Amino acid sequence: MQTMQVDLGDRSYPIYIGENLLSDKELLLKHIRGSQVLVVTNETVAPLYLDRVLNNLSVMKTSHLVLPDGEQYKNLQVLSSIYDKLLNDKHNRTTTLIALGGGVVGDMTGYAAASYQRGVDFIQLPTTLLSQVDSSVGGKTGVNHPLGKNMIGAFHQPRCVLTDCLTLNTLPSRELSAGIAEVIKYGLIADADFFEWLENNIDKLLAKDMTALTYAIEVSCKTKADIVAKDEREGGIRAILNLGHTFGHAIETAQGYGSWLHGEAVAVGMKMAAEFSQQLGWLDSSVVGRLTCLLKQFNLPVESPEGMSADQFMSLMSVDKKVLDGRLRLVLLKHLGEAVVSSDFNNKVLESFLDEQCH
Amino acid sequence: MQTMQVDLGDRSYPIYIGENLLSDKELLLKHIRGSQVLVVTNETVAPLYLDRVLNNLSVMKTSHLVLPDGEQYKNLQVLSSIYDKLLNDKHNRTTTLIALGGGVVGDMTGYAAASYQRGVDFIQLPTTLLSQVDSSVGGKTGVNHPLGKNMIGAFHQPRCVLTDCLTLNTLPSRELSAGIAEVIKYGLIADADFFEWLENNIDKLLAKDMTALTYAIEVSCKTKADIVAKDEREGGIRAILNLGHTFGHAIETAQGYGSWLHGEAVAVGMKMAAEFSQQLGWLDSSVVGRLTCLLKQFNLPVESPEGMSADQFMSLMSVDKKVLDGRLRLVLLKHLGEAVVSSDFNNKVLESFLDEQCH
Repeated sequence: MQTMQVDLGDRSYPIYIGENLLSDKELLLKHIRGSQVLVVTNETVAPLYLDRVLNNLSVMKTSHLVLPDGEQYKNLQVLSSIYDKLLNDKHNRTTTLIALGGGVVGDMTGYAAASYQRGVDFIQLPTTLLSQVDSSVGGKTGVNHPLGKNMIGAFHQPRCVLTDCLTLNTLPSRELSAGIAEVIKYGLIADADFFEWLENNIDKLLAKDMTALTYAIEVSCKTKADIVAKDEREGGIRAILNLGHTFGHAIETAQGYGSWLHGEAVAVGMKMAAEFSQQLGWLDSSVVGRLTCLLKQFNLPVESPEGMSADQFMSLMSVDKKVLDGRLRLVLLKHLGEAVVSSDFNNKVLESFLDEQCH
Repeated sequence: MQTMQVDLGDRSYPIYIGENLLSDKELLLKHIRGSQVLVVTNETVAPLYLDRVLNNLSVMKTSHLVLPDGEQYKNLQVLSSIYDKLLNDKHNRTTTLIALGGGVVGDMTGYAAASYQRGVDFIQLPTTLLSQVDSSVGGKTGVNHPLGKNMIGAFHQPRCVLTDCLTLNTLPSRELSAGIAEVIKYGLIADADFFEWLENNIDKLLAKDMTALTYAIEVSCKTKADIVAKDEREGGIRAILNLGHTFGHAIETAQGYGSWLHGEAVAVGMKMAAEFSQQLGWLDSSVVGRLTCLLKQFNLPVESPEGMSADQFMSLMSVDKKVLDGRLRLVLLKHLGEAVVSSDFNNKVLESFLDEQCH
């Protein structure tokens, strides 16, 4: 088992990465401060892992809640059902919420924990690659609004994250690929060597080789944890973690949450960000080529969805959280392994770029 | 104009108290960092003061939203309409939300600001005595759940509070009295001299003598600000500000939000807390007598609502935010001007006390 500390002063917490951690009762219990627990999961994950987690919690006063599965349920209505459960079961301010599942379960449970009685404890047990490498690190929690992804939320750090890599054995391959999209992102924004390692380990990763997957998770978490430690509330550098997300969120919102997986939309978004960087003369075309090839080999999409227009992109991107005083800012690439947040482009140039991308 | 600093490190902010501050354009503008503003108010306050505030903001890109008036609208559905407005008008992370109204508008707008894009700026323009002395100090924001008051929320400090005492001229006398209940609370928990001053200034306060009201607001804000500065997130001492609130919240929830005013429920709750303290042998009966007399002279209720049972009180109080590991804690009085948070009583004794109180 690897232990990695996310360094955030009095909100620091450990990420444990290893095999079979869901069966490690002691590890879980030592991070629970009170005597009440609510485990939140979804209908896909519950039959696979819920009993194992509940068994570990037999000494606690434990409730559980099974949500429907999918990004389309990451909204205020479903969030509300978590509050209902907490109040019906009389959970008080010393309770701990445990998220067992992927990014949607983690983001919603984390936000319920941030807001229930103005903040209670929270533990993540991520069971998808995407949540293991991305949403479980850094304390971003929240839900979607029909007009924008993750528009309602809070920064709320967990007490710990237990990443059991063996849960990936039950992950559908489409979701594995969606997680890989975020893994590739870390190579693109911060680590050219890791990008190259990914190019050399495609088959192993797709075949769920545990050594390769564990290494990819460790590097990803480490990269993200280092960036978050420098800028917890995204005043600056943290924004580079959003490479591909401005375009990607627009795609997810336009297509209806749940139709594209988050990682799929980010894959197209990263490709668009790289290509736009190249058009601006900032990035060598070979990087765009290598990225496109890598995404395709992981069975990820590289083209924006049919029927989306440049206008639709521009309108949806105008509420992006990186907009500053009305100016859209994008995460763009200077080199492989080096990203910048910039508004140093002409909006007309962006619009005509989007026009080319749409079909 | 008085300026009072709430001392919370990098979340410190000033409270300005004076006459005609709603017309002070410069004072408002200097606390707004971006170029977008959303003013949230309610249907009662809008015809009185909204235009004046909007006039001050003519240089900004300003939206406004008028909510229905009443505690029964302090819920997730109405909160959601604030997010809708923000997104429809394309407010970004540099926007400022301005709450113009009483505690309900302030708590909901503050919570919308805490959670929109994971946190934006927020300014309070309180127009009721209750919000001027209580809800605008200390950063508690949130909404109610059908099963419990303020169960969903966040700590989110405003950039500033502008208290225009002249707004009290339009405040209905029932609401003035409800505000006085919280003013009396500060005397009870921390300042026996101020309690005595209140006993000596009943007529002036009821007649809305501006000098007396301004003094009462200043002492109240100062008392609360001092306590909050010691314990922003209510790990300890801050809980004494909840004197009367455990009983009071149970009354508000049982009666249906909006039927009793918050201050009215707190008045009964304080009387109950004082009487229970006396039964435990902690408080002299003369204090209970003086408190009862003072509340009555301010036209506040002192008896729990007809039809409420001890069981109903116990059940509603079991989700109180001060419950610790299943043990109910109450704010009780040791002396006039000295409160403690305690679970040092037998639940059976509390139940039989509640039985006596119910009718």
